[in-house]
Amino acid sequence: MELETYLKKTADEVNSLLQDCYGDPKTALSRAANHLLFAGGKRLRPALFKLAADAVTPGASQKIMQAGLALEVTHNFTLIHDDIMDKDVYRRGQKTVHTLWGEPAAILAGDVLYARAFFLICNAEAPEGAKVRAISLLARTCEEICEGQQQDMSFEEREDVTRDEYLDMITKKTGVLYGAAAAIGSLLAGGSEAQVDALYTYGCKIGAAFQIQDDLIDLLASSEKSGKDQASDIREGKQTLIAITAREKGIDLKPWRRSLSKDDIVSLIALLNEKGVIHSVEQEANDMISSAINGLSVLPDTTEKKLLADLAWYFIKRDY
Amino acid sequence: MELETYLKKTADEVNSLLQDCYGDPKTALSRAANHLLFAGGKRLRPALFKLAADAVTPGASQKIMQAGLALEVTHNFTLIHDDIMDKDVYRRGQKTVHTLWGEPAAILAGDVLYARAFFLICNAEAPEGAKVRAISLLARTCEEICEGQQQDMSFEEREDVTRDEYLDMITKKTGVLYGAAAAIGSLLAGGSEAQVDALYTYGCKIGAAFQIQDDLIDLLASSEKSGKDQASDIREGKQTLIAITAREKGIDLKPWRRSLSKDDIVSLIALLNEKGVIHSVEQEANDMISSAINGLSVLPDTTEKKLLADLAWYFIKRDY
Repeated sequence: MELETYLKKTADEVNSLLQDCYGDPKTALSRAANHLLFAGGKRLRPALFKLAADAVTPGASQKIMQAGLALEVTHNFTLIHDDIMDKDVYRRGQKTVHTLWGEPAAILAGDVLYARAFFLICNAEAPEGAKVRAISLLARTCEEICEGQQQDMSFEEREDVTRDEYLDMITKKTGVLYGAAAAIGSLLAGGSEAQVDALYTYGCKIGAAFQIQDDLIDLLASSEKSGKDQASDIREGKQTLIAITAREKGIDLKPWRRSLSKDDIVSLIALLNEKGVIHSVEQEANDMISSAINGLSVLPDTTEKKLLADLAWYFIKRDY
Repeated sequence: MELETYLKKTADEVNSLLQDCYGDPKTALSRAANHLLFAGGKRLRPALFKLAADAVTPGASQKIMQAGLALEVTHNFTLIHDDIMDKDVYRRGQKTVHTLWGEPAAILAGDVLYARAFFLICNAEAPEGAKVRAISLLARTCEEICEGQQQDMSFEEREDVTRDEYLDMITKKTGVLYGAAAAIGSLLAGGSEAQVDALYTYGCKIGAAFQIQDDLIDLLASSEKSGKDQASDIREGKQTLIAITAREKGIDLKPWRRSLSKDDIVSLIALLNEKGVIHSVEQEANDMISSAINGLSVLPDTTEKKLLADLAWYFIKRDY
């Protein structure tokens, strides 16, 4: 099966399961908690959960797919709280939860989803020991996501973020939840320790590469293409891998922290290309994806293993 | 053993375990998460966890006491988030987390404690199945606490809160976490289903009675005694069991929503006494405690069972 068909099918399945679980909210708080969850999204984490489960035990995902919702629900909890912290007004084309219901209700809506994530794993049709390991991993993951968000916020006050600090931050903020999705899927499906570990590492790596790709898109994709302001990270002086690599190569990006015309952006990209910054950052993301895929050698050869490799490359698809 | 000695000893044990687990914070976020946790508190929820565990299996708490921290950690997570919502500046005589670190870090600090609570239960030395049931109960409890907090906030806009709505709110906001403490302690210690259920109900009831007692203290205890403004609930028009009972008995409390002198408060209390409001509310709390204790008949006769009865009365000790 083609990856994109697989993802579309899984998203439909996830949406239908979410509807079964939470489609009939009884309280005002449940409606706030549901808002973002039912506002779309590509459902990549449950898709990864499903691929990982079926990659270690063919057909296993059928019985445990509800537990795969836990990853989507966790992701949504973090988005609701992040949106409060970042004072964002829109997400997935809709007003954010705190914009619609106020900050107190949005804090609680996130907290409700947090609880539901653990509840979903408890209810999985899987051995009790596997569920405890899965819950333990999800708890550790949530703590790391919080650390990543805190690091990200603290970087705004700094000019000297190192490459390692940046990679640690994006791994925590974005990578570990993909790692947990793959690991928990394979854990509940009865995967071996080596398989679960390999899938965890794979998920962390593709998640981090996705974040690097996001930084490249911010710089390289036109507003028409991305729907966002081009080069906003550079304008705001954000510490991304591009900014860090530029600094390492002796380029001072401070003069570019200003309103940038289309011509300015063309000149800036030319400069970063000339000094090899963009190539170097693209290479880093590429290397992460290759390394993630290499780690999957512990898996038997199945359609799912192939789809996992496709998914990894899909994460850094160049759409600019 | 006397209850107060037992509580003092358990609090020391809990503080020492917390120190072992979290005493050496590595990140700024961990320091924010630790702040309230290490600012004291009576540690009543871990004490209840311990009593419940030992009441069903003598000595069982020794092996699982770290899991008892989960209840204290959960309690602290809810306090940090509630303080943001209520814009409170002080708690346990110290500045609140959001006052010291800002709201974004306080949201994250609460989220970190939330994760730790689940992690602590995963690590308990107990059967895997019992741990899954405990985690499932904790997750459901957290969702109910959020609902209780949301109800409490929504009552501020209303004048017509009913007795049942109020009792439902305090049970969720305060009762269920005591219920979970008692149930999880007995679950992990190998209690029977009937014992676990009875202890859950006991905890919910004493927690709700505690909240009613808190309302009575607000009205009846002098500022010197309680350290808080006397009759602040009446002045702010808060829907408490006292206000609801007064309304049921035809007393209009609206004229009392103003600055109240000591003489005003004396007159108000005299009025509420004369109409039987205070007696009725005290009776409701008393009845809850009696009913909670009666439910413990499924437990064998042990020191812990006696201490559980003492603890129940301690929750509504009249200190005014």
